[in-house]
Formats: sequence, C-alpha cells, structure tokens
Amino acid sequence: MKKLEELYRGKAKKVYYTDDKDILWLEYTDALTAGDGDKVGSEQDKGKLNNKISALLFDYLKEQNVDNHFVKQISDNEMLVKKVEILPVEVVIRNYAAGSICRRLGLEQKMEMPFPLVEFFYKNDDLKDPLINKEHIKLMNLATEQQVEKMEEISLKVNEILKQLFDDINVVLVDYKLEFGVTNDGKLILSDEISPDTCRLWDKETLESLDKDIFRQDKGSVMDKYTEIYDRIKGRLN
Amino acid sequence: MKKLEELYRGKAKKVYYTDDKDILWLEYTDALTAGDGDKVGSEQDKGKLNNKISALLFDYLKEQNVDNHFVKQISDNEMLVKKVEILPVEVVIRNYAAGSICRRLGLEQKMEMPFPLVEFFYKNDDLKDPLINKEHIKLMNLATEQQVEKMEEISLKVNEILKQLFDDINVVLVDYKLEFGVTNDGKLILSDEISPDTCRLWDKETLESLDKDIFRQDKGSVMDKYTEIYDRIKGRLN
Ligand SMILES: Nc1ncnc2c1ncn2[C@@H]1O[C@H](COP(=O)(O)OP(=O)(O)OP(=O)(O)O)[C@@H](O)[C@H]1O
Ligand SMILES: Nc1ncnc2c1ncn2[C@@H]1O[C@H](COP(=O)(O)OP(=O)(O)OP(=O)(O)O)[C@@H](O)[C@H]1O
Ligand SMILES: [Mg+2]
Ligand SMILES: [Mg+2]
Repeated sequence: MKKLEELYRGKAKKVYYTDDKDILWLEYTDALTAGDGDKVGSEQDKGKLNNKISALLFDYLKEQNVDNHFVKQISDNEMLVKKVEILPVEVVIRNYAAGSICRRLGLEQKMEMPFPLVEFFYKNDDLKDPLINKEHIKLMNLATEQQVEKMEEISLKVNEILKQLFDDINVVLVDYKLEFGVTNDGKLILSDEISPDTCRLWDKETLESLDKDIFRQDKGSVMDKYTEIYDRIKGRLN
Repeated sequence: MKKLEELYRGKAKKVYYTDDKDILWLEYTDALTAGDGDKVGSEQDKGKLNNKISALLFDYLKEQNVDNHFVKQISDNEMLVKKVEILPVEVVIRNYAAGSICRRLGLEQKMEMPFPLVEFFYKNDDLKDPLINKEHIKLMNLATEQQVEKMEEISLKVNEILKQLFDDINVVLVDYKLEFGVTNDGKLILSDEISPDTCRLWDKETLESLDKDIFRQDKGSVMDKYTEIYDRIKGRLN
C-alpha cells in the first residue's frame, strides 16, 4: 500500500489517500486540543498510544460484530482505514455525568445515568460543535432518519461491549464520542478513533482520570495514564 | 372571585391564589426582559396588550378544541387561569429561522423551515434555559414520555391554527414558545401566555418585526406594534 497526498488534517490526525481508492492512511499526531480548539498542546508519543489503543478497540469491536473502518495498524502511529464520508454528527454516549453536561444541565459531577444517555452534536468547529436533536439533523440534512437510528443502535451496542471491556480492567467508561461514515459502497460504519482523547475513563478504585481531562484540567502529563490504559487493554485482550 | 396572596412572580407576570383552589389570578406587568434576563426594561401598558392578546388567542384556541388554562379576562391586565403545575420544559416551534437558532446552527436568517421545527428547552433561569432533547427530559424527570408526546402534538396543532390566523391578518408566525402544565385533576394543558413577548411575528409585506425583537434589538418602543397586533387579531376574530 502506498501513501499518497494528504486528503485533510484535523486537530489530532492527518489523513492521506492511498493507491487503493477505498483505503485511507491515518497518522495520529501528538497534538492535544480542548475546548473546541481553544486550548492547544502536545505530548511526545501521545499519537502512538492513541493509534495503538484505537487499533485494539476497533479490532475487538469487529470481533464482537461491530463493523468499523479499521483495516490494519501499519506503524506505531499509523493505521489503514476504510475511506468513508464522515457524517457531520458526533454521537456522545454518557454512563456518568461529567464535564460539559454538568455545567449545561446543572447535573452533579459523577452522577450515574439511569440509562446510557445519547446526545448528538453538529460536527462544526466554527459553531463549536453545538448540541442538536433529531429534528435539527433532519432540517440540515446531516443524516437520514435511518442513519440516525442506526448510529444510535450501534452506539448503544458499542457501549455494552466497551463498558464490559473497561470494567474487566478496572476502568469506568464514563462517556465517549463516536463518529460514523458512509463507505464508497454506501455502508454506514463506525469510524474515526476511540482513545483516551475521545473517551472519559476513570480508575474504578480511585476515580482518577485516565484520559484527556488530565490535559483539560492541567493535571500534568497524560502519558503515564494513556500508557496505563494501553497496557491494561492489551493485557485483557491477549 | 377573590384575589389572595401571591404564589410567585416571574419576569413578566405576577401570579396570585384565589379563593378557588383550582383558579389563579394572573397579572401581566409592563416589564420587558431579553437574553434570559440580561436586558431589562419596561413600557407603560405593555402588560395590558399582552393580557388582551393572550386572552383572544387562548379563547380562539379553545374554540378550535385546544384545551388551555385560560378562564376569563377580568381587567385590561388581569386574567383568571386554571392553576397548573408548570412542566419545566419550554416548547419552541419554528416556521422560519430567526434569532438564537441562526447563531447556534449557522442557519440563514429568515430561512423557511421545510417542516415546523420542534425544540425543547429546560426552563431554568440559572442555566439560561438550555436546549435539551427527549433523553434529557427523561433523565431529569422533567416530564413523562407521554407528556412529551402530548406537548409536541398540541404544539403542532397550535401551529396549524395560529399560522392560519396570523396569515389571515397579514402576519407571519415565525416562531413561538409554549409552556404546559398539569391541572389539579391531572390533565396536561397549554398554559402561560401567547403574546408578542413569546412569539416572533413579522408583517407579511415588509417583514418588519411586530414583537419583542423590537426591544431585543433596541428598535424603539414596542407599543405601536403590539397595539397593531392586538387590533388586527381583534378585527379578525370579531
Ligand atoms: N475512515 C475515515 N475516512 C475519512 N475521514 C475520516 C475517517 N476517520 C476519521 N476521519 C476524519 O479525519 C479527520 C481528522 O481527524 P481529527 O480527529 O484530527 O479531526 P478533528 O480535528 O477532531 O476534527 P473534527 O473536530 O472535525 O473531528 C476528522 O474530520 C475525522 O472525522
Ligand atoms: N396556569 C398557570 N398556573 C401556574 N403557573 C403558571 C400558569 N401560567 C403561567 N404560570 C407561570 O407563572 C410564572 C410567571 O410568569 P412569567 O412569564 O412572568 O415568568 P418568567 O419570568 O417568564 O419565568 P420563566 O422564565 O420561568 O417562564 C411562570 O413560571 C409561568 O410558567
Ligand atoms: Mg477528532
Ligand atoms: Mg414567561
């Protein structure tokens, strides 16, 4: 497989074409951003950990029959993925209240949700990814009603699988953001990344953050905790 | 009917008990507020117009079989209403894009909606009435799923009726906010007020604002336009 010109780059990944029109080359960078890009930083080798964690999780999800864009890890910080048209909707699933939802709705931090809460956000940096509902998705043609249903269904299935996986390694899956895309042959699949950059993860005993909240809240380097997450997942899946 | 002690007061109305436990006494005040209370003002006799407009509209809706809290107008700025427990959910229906939704989602001002857009907001001044979805309503127990369905159904019926009524008087019903409550005998009904303070209304020919946007945007006195709205509705309904 040959890496060709850049398709686009985001805040944490660079995306390249390959000589296969159905396959893209993802490079995970060391950049860290928070607050819709207001806070910026970077940590050496962070990209490698997120790439390796995403690879493990996507692989595991595939084994559990959750189809996704992951094809193959090709280096510490690179993977091949199926090329998709990303839908401009971010799906957030919350098992506990933390972060923005607490400020937004006055919920108590760390409150357990009585059911996995599903939220949709409009993936639009200029607008700072605003919360939307299904009617907004329809209005702006961000996804069809069928795609919305499917995203919700897959997200909840992913939740069951990952909640259990993380529980096995003494980690609480607090919340996470998923992205979905449509492949060249029209199939809706889970895409983007699943890593401590896109999930809130707490140690089950101490409830300390093992995710990007360390960066958001200026609590030091993320590297030890991201490494800890990688090692625990790796240990569980081997 | 006797007016007894104050139950509570809001930004635009005072609410009193009466000697009938099922009936409250509403006094419309002259206060104008915008931006969740950030901007404050008042105009002499504004309360009278909103009271009289609300009375006409609630009466008309009742004729059209939309049950609501209105009982009887008792003075220029006072009405009797059925006492309800207001649900802490504001329902907004939009026929055209204007105001906050344009900033929030990057929609073009004055864009016609392809269908009446329904939004729910959490009625909570401290949190500045945040947008919520049905899952948030369930999570926070703001209303039952059945009540949500009913609010949506009634709001859309109100939309059909009022869109036509305003069209008849050369006014565009752009958007509006409704509140619902549960009566002492457990019935969910339309409540609060329907006035140029709670609706966006545009002259059909000139598209000029005939509503609280005049105050929000510092475009002078609201009185002429509110009077104009009252007169046109009154003319149509007599
Ligand atoms: N399989 C895929 N095919 C095409 N694009 C993808 C795929 N997986 C992820 N992407 C997209 O690659 C882009 C770069 O990823 P990155 O995470 O750096 O973006 P980002 O800065 O977070 O931007 P955004 O806020 O738009 O997600 C994103 O727009 C992401 O949706
Ligand atoms: N039939 C009713 N029974 C009980 N309360 C009512 C009824 N109709 C309206 N109310 C409530 O009366 C209160 C005062 O009205 P007002 O419009 O001044 O409130 P407000 O300042 O807009 O506050 P809010 O932002 O909570 O609506 C509101 O909380 C409103 O929901
Ligand atoms: Mg991203
Ligand atoms: Mg009010």
